[in-house]
Amino acid sequence: MSPYPEALRQRVERYLEGLRFAREPGVSGLDEAMRYSLLAGGKRIRPVLALATAGALGADAEEVMPLAGAIELIHTYSLIHDDLPAMDDDDLRRGRPTCHKAFGENVAILAGDGLYAEAFRLLLTEQRGEPARVLAAGAELAAATAADGMVGGQYIDVTETALPGADGLRHLHELKTGRLIGASVGCVLLLVGSAEDARMREFRSFASELGVLFQIVDDILDVTGTEAALGKTQGSDARHGKRTYVSEYGVDQARALALASYDQARATLSRAAPDGARELEQITDFIFTRTS
Amino acid sequence: MSPYPEALRQRVERYLEGLRFAREPGVSGLDEAMRYSLLAGGKRIRPVLALATAGALGADAEEVMPLAGAIELIHTYSLIHDDLPAMDDDDLRRGRPTCHKAFGENVAILAGDGLYAEAFRLLLTEQRGEPARVLAAGAELAAATAADGMVGGQYIDVTETALPGADGLRHLHELKTGRLIGASVGCVLLLVGSAEDARMREFRSFASELGVLFQIVDDILDVTGTEAALGKTQGSDARHGKRTYVSEYGVDQARALALASYDQARATLSRAAPDGARELEQITDFIFTRTS
Repeated sequence: MSPYPEALRQRVERYLEGLRFAREPGVSGLDEAMRYSLLAGGKRIRPVLALATAGALGADAEEVMPLAGAIELIHTYSLIHDDLPAMDDDDLRRGRPTCHKAFGENVAILAGDGLYAEAFRLLLTEQRGEPARVLAAGAELAAATAADGMVGGQYIDVTETALPGADGLRHLHELKTGRLIGASVGCVLLLVGSAEDARMREFRSFASELGVLFQIVDDILDVTGTEAALGKTQGSDARHGKRTYVSEYGVDQARALALASYDQARATLSRAAPDGARELEQITDFIFTRTS
Repeated sequence: MSPYPEALRQRVERYLEGLRFAREPGVSGLDEAMRYSLLAGGKRIRPVLALATAGALGADAEEVMPLAGAIELIHTYSLIHDDLPAMDDDDLRRGRPTCHKAFGENVAILAGDGLYAEAFRLLLTEQRGEPARVLAAGAELAAATAADGMVGGQYIDVTETALPGADGLRHLHELKTGRLIGASVGCVLLLVGSAEDARMREFRSFASELGVLFQIVDDILDVTGTEAALGKTQGSDARHGKRTYVSEYGVDQARALALASYDQARATLSRAAPDGARELEQITDFIFTRTS
């Protein structure tokens, strides 16, 4: 099993540590709350995926760093809002009190709002490249996180309006987590990709399968993981009566689905990058085998 | 006193009515909540200001409609989140139950999140013009609503961390309401403006003063307006112990400040548009004389 692309993760980490959001007088507490949640560690799967995709396309990973940072800001914002008392009401995230536990509910709502705005500020201000390409990447990122994307998925989740059966479950996760994972690859294709449509389509299929794989493993870990390893409350899905791959299929069948999804992702990746894409392979392996 | 530019307001209204956000299965309730708040009426000051600015620059107002719509989506999102129980905890907005009263707190948070995302989707997908110009407008809109802008202003407001005295009050409002009003003009300058820097600077000064005028009048109306006219709870500022132009200066002195600000705005506008800009004059007059 190949290791995680740690060098890329560290570059993301350093980039995120260097970000400052609020410099105006009186707003330092907001900056603190935003950075508290942003710098809580984690594998940085989405931005690392973006950098690795740039690498697989022959570009320098550094070139897409503002995009990668923007995606992690958005991911962090979604976690802060998902954890709120009116949503999943979670107290623990990555082994620390959630943002609203640490800073209060009003500040947590604003920290999430602020991170989402800062993501677009970062992308539209700092990302280099032809303006038409940056614009296209911004449009994809907005759509992936809007009402027919991440926010819509969260709506379906909290209001339990998913369609019945496995299709409904897959649709929920495609919106809630799949679209942002897909954008982590898709926006890079728009920024530094070529017009080789067939290969770009394979990259998109790969990203889509990666989103499915991520979610199946996430659902399994919610049941089998330890709180110490997860850094969040174990069994949270069951406690909220959420439909998951485990509740739908049982653990064993979910594991089989994960393996099939992993094989599918690796096969698609081989077609997208026939000469190999080591870091993307590592990320795929990590998502499949992770224990937290 | 000249009337409000009603024709522009109606064009905005029709444009907003035509927007649909969530088409995916299971998400229609989110779409409903977003449209409930978006289509609650109002004068549409910010988008009308954007269209009028385009007109004053010799462009067709229709040209900047996606930008104008995006700005109203953002304004609506900010109202939804400001009204939340953890924030101002208001039950009434434009004469109707606030979003969280009508749809629940979780849906209201997501409706706000969704509107902000849809604003950027709209601007980055639908706004015509040179990509570099659209990009610049998007960057200004993001910055105006981020941690050093609207969200930072709301943070200062709810955590009462404004600097002391009149300067602190002005700073709070510059961030909380001034930056988005400023962007309603500033983004249009970036989209369809010329390189005549001096005139562009006058337009920006005008927009900045308009933000100040808007806030002074808003603070006066919170004390002197009727709930029927305001469509929201009267005296809300005082109830929350908020510092306002009235609490700082008293009603009479606040009225004098409003008049001075109005004169200043009109004078600056005359320099920005020496040949006259009837609709911008009407908006300025309306903001000064409005009773709700």
